[in-house]
This record gives sequence, C-alpha cells and structure tokens, in this order.
Amino acid sequence: MSTHNFGIAIHGGAGTILKSEMTPEKENNYKAALEKALQAGYDCLENGKTAMEAVEAAIIELENSPLFNAGRGAVFNAKGQHEMDASIMDGKTLHAGAVAAVRNLKNPISLATKVLHHSDHILLMGEGAAEFAKQFEIEFESDEYFFDQYRYDQWQKIKGTDNFQLDHSKKEKKYLGTVGAVALDKDGNLAAGTSTGGMTNKKFGRIGDSALIGLGTYANNKTCAISCTGSGEYLMRAVTAYDVSSRMEYKGLNLKDAVNESIMDRLTEIGGDGGLVAMDKDGNIEMPFNCEGMYRASKNAQQTVVEIYR
Amino acid sequence: MSTHNFGIAIHGGAGTILKSEMTPEKENNYKAALEKALQAGYDCLENGKTAMEAVEAAIIELENSPLFNAGRGAVFNAKGQHEMDASIMDGKTLHAGAVAAVRNLKNPISLATKVLHHSDHILLMGEGAAEFAKQFEIEFESDEYFFDQYRYDQWQKIKGTDNFQLDHSKKEKKYLGTVGAVALDKDGNLAAGTSTGGMTNKKFGRIGDSALIGLGTYANNKTCAISCTGSGEYLMRAVTAYDVSSRMEYKGLNLKDAVNESIMDRLTEIGGDGGLVAMDKDGNIEMPFNCEGMYRASKNAQQTVVEIYR
Repeated sequence: MSTHNFGIAIHGGAGTILKSEMTPEKENNYKAALEKALQAGYDCLENGKTAMEAVEAAIIELENSPLFNAGRGAVFNAKGQHEMDASIMDGKTLHAGAVAAVRNLKNPISLATKVLHHSDHILLMGEGAAEFAKQFEIEFESDEYFFDQYRYDQWQKIKGTDNFQLDHSKKEKKYLGTVGAVALDKDGNLAAGTSTGGMTNKKFGRIGDSALIGLGTYANNKTCAISCTGSGEYLMRAVTAYDVSSRMEYKGLNLKDAVNESIMDRLTEIGGDGGLVAMDKDGNIEMPFNCEGMYRASKNAQQTVVEIYR
Repeated sequence: MSTHNFGIAIHGGAGTILKSEMTPEKENNYKAALEKALQAGYDCLENGKTAMEAVEAAIIELENSPLFNAGRGAVFNAKGQHEMDASIMDGKTLHAGAVAAVRNLKNPISLATKVLHHSDHILLMGEGAAEFAKQFEIEFESDEYFFDQYRYDQWQKIKGTDNFQLDHSKKEKKYLGTVGAVALDKDGNLAAGTSTGGMTNKKFGRIGDSALIGLGTYANNKTCAISCTGSGEYLMRAVTAYDVSSRMEYKGLNLKDAVNESIMDRLTEIGGDGGLVAMDKDGNIEMPFNCEGMYRASKNAQQTVVEIYR
C-alpha cells in the first residue's frame, strides 16, 4: 500500500439522547451536519493534507453548526455568556495547543491551533487568550451570532440556581454536544482535537476536560489519537485520553481493547458517563460510549458510518 | 505493623540551581524552610490526620515562605500581577480540586481543597474561582504581601519583552520553585498537591501543569502519589504525573523504575527539564530530577532527608 490507511472519526457529544425527543427531521439535521464535517475532514486527507489540518477542518464545521455545543451552538453560562474551551494535539511532534474560557471566537479550535504553532505555551485562558488571538487573523463574532433560542430557554430554566447541565442528577442529565475529531493522514500521522461550550449555567470559571491535553484530547503516533465527550469531571479524574494511550503502550492492548477498558470499565466504575472517538496508527477506528447515544461518524477508504444511537 | 508506613515528601522546585549563586546562608534558609514544611506535614500524619491534610499543611508552609515561587513568593506576570495555580488529589476517592490564575489568595492550595470538597467541578479559574472562594473563610492578601524585591528585579529585567522565565534558552533557564507534596497516611491513603506562581513575565493567561490533574498532580491508592516541577509545557505534553501511575498499573513497574522512566527517559527525550516527588502505597519515596538540582525533603519513621543538589 502506497499510503497509510487514512481516515477520520468525529463526534458531536455523548449522553442521554432520548429517542422520544428526537423527530426524524431533527435526526436528519444532525446526521447531515455530521456528514458535512466528516467530509470536510476527509477531503483534506484525500488531498494529502495533514491529520492536524483534517481535524481542524472537521471541527470548524461542527463549531459553525448551531446543533452542537461548541462555537456557534455554545450554551449559556451562569452570566448568560458563551465561554468556550478547545484543544488540539499533533501525534507526530507531541505538540499541543489549547484555550479555555474564550468568548466571541468563531472557531476556538483555530485559536488552539495557533497556540500550538506560535506559542511556547500549551494552554491559554480567558482574556489572555483573546489578547494572543489578536496577533493573528482570527474571526470574532458578536453575541448575537451565538444566540440560540433553544439554548437560551435551557438556561432560563435553571438560571439563578446552583444547577448546571450536564449535571449529576440522573433525571435531568442532558449531555450537550461537545465536538471532536481524530484523524490519520496519508503520511501515517495522527492528530486529535476537541471543542466545547461547556455546561449550561456553569459558574466560577469552570474548565472541563475539553481544554486539557491528556484528559479530553491526546495524540501520539506511537499509540493513538483520542477525543472525549461526556461528564467532564469524571473524564478528568480518569485522565481518560491518556489512559487509552497508556493501556496500548504499557499493557500492549490493541485500540479496541484499550478504549473498552477506559470507557466501559474505568469511566463506568467511577460513575462517569461518556464516550470518545479513537484512531490508531494503522487506521483502526473505535467510537465507544457507555451512555444512550453519541453523535458520531467516521470515514475511510472502506466505509462511511454516521450514527447516533447504539 | 499496626499502621501503614506513613510519610511525606515535598519539593520546592527543580531546575538549574547554580551552586555558584548559592551562599551557605541562603542554603541554610532554604533547608530550614523545607524542614518547617516537612515537619508540618509529618506532624499531621503522626497525629493520625489524613494524607490530604498533611499535603495541604506542608504546602501552606511552602506558600507562606517568600523563598519559593508559590503563594507569598509568587513571581510577577507580564502585568506585574501574581497569578497562581494549585491542585490537589485524593488517592482514596480519586476526587480532585484545582484553581488556575487566582490572585491575592494567601493559600491557593486551600482553595483547591475547597473545590475538591465543595464543588462538582475540578478546575476553577480566575475571577470565577475568587467568587467561589467567597463562600468560605479563605484568606486574601494585598499585593504588598506578595511583593518581593528579588522577584520584582527579575521581572524588570525582562518586562516588555517576549521572554519569560522559566524559558527555553539554556543560558537564562532558572526554574523558580513551584512547590508540592505527596503523603501516605496511617490508613494507607495517598494524596498529592502542587502550587505555583508560574513564570516571571508570563502572558496571555498561561496555565501550566501545576493546576492540572494527571499532568502536574496525581494520586491513586492503587499506584502512587505524584507532584511535578520543572518545564511545565513538557510535563503537560508527557502527561507526567499520570504517566508514572500508568507505568506502575499497566506495566507492573515498581515506583523507582516508573519515576525513572517518566523523568529520566520520557521527559528527557522530549527535551523537558524537571523532577517530581513520589510515594507509593507501601510508603516508598522517590524524588528524581533530570536537572542540576531540586529543593526536596522527605520524612518517615526511618529517615529524614533534606537536599538541594544531587
């Protein structure tokens, strides 16, 4: 084979996605949005671009869709603002970039990529990250761009309370689509990225796993590329992204067994809900989750998958 | 044996600590400060308190000393402010708490502990974290409390430039004492904590490994407790704290071999400088570093160690 078995896998969030609340029209909209993002990433790979470029391209599409909780569709925090986190990692160099609690950025994943390429740091936050962004041609958008009636209504319901979604009550648990992508390019390089608007009504400058290398995002050509979604605090405590890589590197597991142990065993044991998309250096793709559904899609030369439920 | 082989290990930062710049008086001051913190933590353990309490007590002492880059001794960022990060993790429950870019807090480690016990979140940042702090009796201090002529002069030298310390130039590399502690208590529970003022002249809301669970801090009764110090971005890319734990859990290594592989091999391979303090569930203590020195100390029933150089 002249090139590696290139491909891409993306997610738009995991959790309790109730079939009863899903209409055929909604389902089609979600699947169309996933397909568009998938294709954007796959086109990059097919045209010989890097896994890093494919991951960024796919996540930009997901951020630009109002359907997912990232970029345009980011939820409202306790102050009625949209605070977003994103991170990206290059499996070839182990370099990484991430931003936390950034506001009014059209595409947080692109700023994370700028951090990777143009900063000695990995993680920049808040106004400092916005100041860093001004060195580059980065698009900012008004608050109106991020306004969404559905998200607003979600926030109004719990505004002024100590509740937040995703919360820990089983009843009210609604994971809102954090997005992410992993890719393997023709040169055999892996990359992973994640982007989120966090939790509705979140307070106190909370930063979740999506901004954090090793926790929500990890890539290493020696092992795998991982992007997580779900109950962020549990994914953090379990160091989930790097846990998959470690099980491959130190325990000798293949990708399938490694992701199953990390999600089905470890994350479940500590009470966390979630899932991830994963690729290894041979182009194998895994998209496990321990909850009712995960918006997910993957594409390589052999097949295209676009799914929501089990 | 009626109780576990309890003990504590602490650090006050790793890096190029030039012997030529060290006077006997300075050395005595550093050693006295380390001993005071060590004893504060050890007293907790001897009195039957938890590893969590011992770690917090030791780090409070280190934060209260102007000699280390944490709490009172925190360096100046590019705006002349003191922005501090801290994190703590309980090896028994795998619960964790952390704060990033907090200002004017006397003891950031205590706020991280409040996050662990009283928040559904793990990592809170900036003004949001300060707002969270107001729910508790947490001591705030004026800017004067944090003023230090030596730190100020360091900042004046590089203010207005793009340089920061610790930077990547071999000449100018001065690791400023991030502090940390790990402990095993009489009940056999492990805990780890880390606290830092970051880098002189740091910009853009940079968050380093010290605030991040799995990267700078990790504890798990099944394996070990770890607190890292050194070139933060490299420790982050190597997911160093959890890497030690993974090598023990998945590769079956003992603590000594695991820390050596993580620091001497992995961190060194990617060009990072630093070290860590580590304890396992049997009370073994390791304090490896791949640079010229690390302020470090440990104490258990068998021996007390207080050292700076190799």
